[in-house]
Amino acid sequence: MDPSLVLQFRSDVSLARVADEQVRLEFAWGNAALGEITPGLLAVLERLSCDGATEDDLSELVLETDGFSALARFYYYLERFGKLGILRYTLIGDGGPLATVVPMCGGFHLPTRSDGPDTRFRLSRFAYCRREGDGLALETPCSPARTILHGRSGVALLAELSSPRSCHDLCALIGGLGEDTVRTFLTILASLGVVGEVDSHGNLVEDTDSVMVQWEFHDLLFHSRSRTGRHDYAVGGTYRFLGKVAPEPALKPTTSAPVVLLRKPDLLQVERKDPSFTSVLENRKSLRAYGTQPITAARLGEFLYRVARVRRLTEPDPTVGLHYQSSNRPYPSGGATYDLELYVTVNNCADLPRGLYHYDALDHQLEKLADHGPRVEALLRDAQLAVRLADEPQILITLTSRFQRVSWKYSGIAYALTLKHVGVLFQTMYLVATAMELAPCAVGTGNSDLFAEAAGTNYFAETSVGEFLLGSAPA
Amino acid sequence: MDPSLVLQFRSDVSLARVADEQVRLEFAWGNAALGEITPGLLAVLERLSCDGATEDDLSELVLETDGFSALARFYYYLERFGKLGILRYTLIGDGGPLATVVPMCGGFHLPTRSDGPDTRFRLSRFAYCRREGDGLALETPCSPARTILHGRSGVALLAELSSPRSCHDLCALIGGLGEDTVRTFLTILASLGVVGEVDSHGNLVEDTDSVMVQWEFHDLLFHSRSRTGRHDYAVGGTYRFLGKVAPEPALKPTTSAPVVLLRKPDLLQVERKDPSFTSVLENRKSLRAYGTQPITAARLGEFLYRVARVRRLTEPDPTVGLHYQSSNRPYPSGGATYDLELYVTVNNCADLPRGLYHYDALDHQLEKLADHGPRVEALLRDAQLAVRLADEPQILITLTSRFQRVSWKYSGIAYALTLKHVGVLFQTMYLVATAMELAPCAVGTGNSDLFAEAAGTNYFAETSVGEFLLGSAPA
Repeated sequence: MDPSLVLQFRSDVSLARVADEQVRLEFAWGNAALGEITPGLLAVLERLSCDGATEDDLSELVLETDGFSALARFYYYLERFGKLGILRYTLIGDGGPLATVVPMCGGFHLPTRSDGPDTRFRLSRFAYCRREGDGLALETPCSPARTILHGRSGVALLAELSSPRSCHDLCALIGGLGEDTVRTFLTILASLGVVGEVDSHGNLVEDTDSVMVQWEFHDLLFHSRSRTGRHDYAVGGTYRFLGKVAPEPALKPTTSAPVVLLRKPDLLQVERKDPSFTSVLENRKSLRAYGTQPITAARLGEFLYRVARVRRLTEPDPTVGLHYQSSNRPYPSGGATYDLELYVTVNNCADLPRGLYHYDALDHQLEKLADHGPRVEALLRDAQLAVRLADEPQILITLTSRFQRVSWKYSGIAYALTLKHVGVLFQTMYLVATAMELAPCAVGTGNSDLFAEAAGTNYFAETSVGEFLLGSAPA
Repeated sequence: MDPSLVLQFRSDVSLARVADEQVRLEFAWGNAALGEITPGLLAVLERLSCDGATEDDLSELVLETDGFSALARFYYYLERFGKLGILRYTLIGDGGPLATVVPMCGGFHLPTRSDGPDTRFRLSRFAYCRREGDGLALETPCSPARTILHGRSGVALLAELSSPRSCHDLCALIGGLGEDTVRTFLTILASLGVVGEVDSHGNLVEDTDSVMVQWEFHDLLFHSRSRTGRHDYAVGGTYRFLGKVAPEPALKPTTSAPVVLLRKPDLLQVERKDPSFTSVLENRKSLRAYGTQPITAARLGEFLYRVARVRRLTEPDPTVGLHYQSSNRPYPSGGATYDLELYVTVNNCADLPRGLYHYDALDHQLEKLADHGPRVEALLRDAQLAVRLADEPQILITLTSRFQRVSWKYSGIAYALTLKHVGVLFQTMYLVATAMELAPCAVGTGNSDLFAEAAGTNYFAETSVGEFLLGSAPA
């Protein structure tokens, strides 16, 4: 290992003496029992728990305290700690610490490379730098480690690595850093995939590899962070705002907007003339053309009722672990959060005026938010173009998320859940439309800024996450 | 406007003379016709299209060429360009250019603030810095502009702004930058939300605002970039790899793994004893306990057949715009990409050995990938814990995405589509399970690294994006 690397435990590692000569390490992703801990090894563990030390200093400590015989065990443990992902590595330059590598999961080990001083490297397009506490952290979804940059030299190196640079180049460009230090810096970042070796055209492997080239930054970052695996962020139902921020109510507060009551269908009657489940599932398809007679308010109302009405509300009851108000609707939703709201843009309906409406799923009515105008027109046109609709849209249903309904409970997966909810609702709408012989078609994307403006919502509290077109079926 | 800001058109803006004294600007998000273009104004347009100039230099140019009377029109146009989002702004310091702000959509304008020299700022946790071409770009999903950092001073300022810093602090910490320059730099970044003013505790508004505090970085970034609006990245079916990278085939290539044939149900018979669509939809619910008799291979086979079999394959036909092989299955998928594959982990089935299987949706059979072992056990345990299952799982169905099936065609929305597909398939599985009186339960997340190891897939080419538990229903 490089002599200028200081080794230290991750901050979550704690030591517990469980017996004479036995120590137990506890850390975020597990624990490890260590037997036959000599005084020298104990001193090593204590150094690793505090300020850390280089491998040479630690072996010196063992040698002085225990003698030569304990060295083998020391190296064995050091390798084991490395593989457990509980060691962080700080590179010290002439001017002080330059960067610290912190593993984010078990099974990590800091690989070694031996690159020549003229091998050229460049920042990966998947690497990104953000504030993390009081420091700047470099991460990439390609690797399970975080690199904390210390001081200005680290970021100066980063800035230079926007273009292909060798160790020699960097030493010439940035004064005051020893060549060994820069080489180790490059070796570490290259091992982690933060930078990559470039070919004579300045291309990284990721620029030509047929798999990697098809990943966009935001997609790969999101995939890696919304699933467990290669990182140490919390994932799942953590309730991290419990007792700090009030959870959003199950229903969006109603407004004083004018209301159109919708007819409630008789579900028993519906069921009597209903097709079989399998015929609905097997016959579902997207329809991009409509009948000459537009959809009616009664049919639209029946559709919304069957898809999305609130069947019941459940008040919070912390004694049974229900920390927020929830609801029950015909389709499933993670944690019964039901973050999705339905907005109906009426463009061509037999008996409803054009405009943008919000579906009040409890009282089964439409609240009119806006008349037809340029923004509403743009929402319709975007959807029409996206699916290459043959006809003018009749009804556009925009799904929004009241994001904090989900993120109040769930860490890491909140937005992923929202998009799964959108898919669940899409298939529910497809099937109900098929059963009702209407024309359904899901849309691939839409403009969330435009929707927030049109509906008067706060982009960060509630805006569009899905679009669906509905109309009367063609003859 | 600040005297040290150089104004320039975005690189996508082009000028076309459409008639005498008439010019038409064309740009990524629209165009603008300009009338009564005097020689001085034409010179301004040409300067803005090339190296750019400060507002003072440009007004001087108009004054010299056209005289005083043209100035009003010049200022009117400059404001119009700003609002169209087609002007970029480069801050010049003593040592050269420091940063360039590039609007990413129309409707943008560079707001002005007037902060005292002791107002303290700090990097937003939503701001991130990445390589963009040969430079470093700063972006945040909170604002529709990209800031390109030039040289080392820009990144040095960035590094210092990890902690709360005033203009005075920064001038003292980083030599060679004039106070006016640093103040303008801070003003610009604060206007864009890249940094924010901190209170006496060092907190930004985003740290205390009840809406913003509930957003995680990866979620907000992904939301903003997978929807149209506040950015200039491509969104939709762009086919950007057409003619460059071969599209993935519709079906995952089969392996030599041992195969278990599944029985195909007779759909006509299924339909005859099928419940009505509405009763299935209305009675669907998650079940977290199972019957004493485990599920059989025949029932599992019927379930998979009804949910996910390939009904037909369609070969590419570029003459009608079909650039890749597609398939048709019972559930919908964007662009008929059907990126999702089903993997079946059998833990307790009446007549199938335990282990991890891949569902071959064309030939309706299971390919056995792995026996029951520590990794398979970990996949089962994770799912069981995530949904607090009362019993041992019987069957875990893991959905993977063959990511490049979607990203080959779609820009911006590829992974968002994948998650919508997962939701679509979840609801399809819920409903088929309900019709079959099985016990279904969707799972919130899983470990994609672990799955890739267990199934032997390349994490970046195919790994898990959803989990679903299935078993016999409790009595």
